[in-house]
Amino acid sequence: MKVNNYQAVEQKPVEMEGSQGCQVRSLLSSGDGAPNFAMRQFEVEPGGYTPRHSHPYEHEVFVLEGEGLVLEGSVEHRLQAGDVVLVTPDEIHQFKNTGQTPLKFLCLVPNSYKDLPISMAPECGVE
Amino acid sequence: MKVNNYQAVEQKPVEMEGSQGCQVRSLLSSGDGAPNFAMRQFEVEPGGYTPRHSHPYEHEVFVLEGEGLVLEGSVEHRLQAGDVVLVTPDEIHQFKNTGQTPLKFLCLVPNSYKDLPISMAPECGVE
Repeated sequence: MKVNNYQAVEQKPVEMEGSQGCQVRSLLSSGDGAPNFAMRQFEVEPGGYTPRHSHPYEHEVFVLEGEGLVLEGSVEHRLQAGDVVLVTPDEIHQFKNTGQTPLKFLCLVPNSYKDLPISMAPECGVE
Repeated sequence: MKVNNYQAVEQKPVEMEGSQGCQVRSLLSSGDGAPNFAMRQFEVEPGGYTPRHSHPYEHEVFVLEGEGLVLEGSVEHRLQAGDVVLVTPDEIHQFKNTGQTPLKFLCLVPNSYKDLPISMAPECGVE
């Protein structure tokens, strides 16, 4: 068993192309003995966003704090604390902070994600 | 993509032997198209608890609200909002609400959990 508080976990900048003002904490991973999936916590500053991208694995997201939106292709879904999002494999998606405070969310992925490719979505592309 | 608020999901009583005052919401599951793992949200009333049990799959837990503890065998770990728990496969564990308000947490499991057996821990057993 591992017990920890998320705020005790080091926060690292998300350096992926197409992201701005994002940080991530690795809360649980295969390195902790998690056999199947990993729990990460993201923090997006006001005005910030994750990359607009897709990949052949899912996200299971739970919004902890703040306000924002998730783009499903070009469709916007507004987000607030307590919202749950399933991004299915290969969906183009992007999270943005549209509020005045940090947007904090959990984002879980299967352990296989490190071996799978990421595709950046074109800036003005048609899905 | 699926977007929803956890409070819009029907809450059902946990009827497993050894639990008291627990309710659960199925937030994301294979039925929603989640390929690998399921997100559930538990709510334990003051004085309530989940069963003291084990199973051959993991839990990844994030505490949303309230105060409580998780038993790792007979060792107690105190819990508060923001705490993260990895229960590894076959560990005997139990969650208890020791506070005055509901203890709310997310608990994620691999989709295979429905096909795997659960073992109840003896009341006064030695692990």
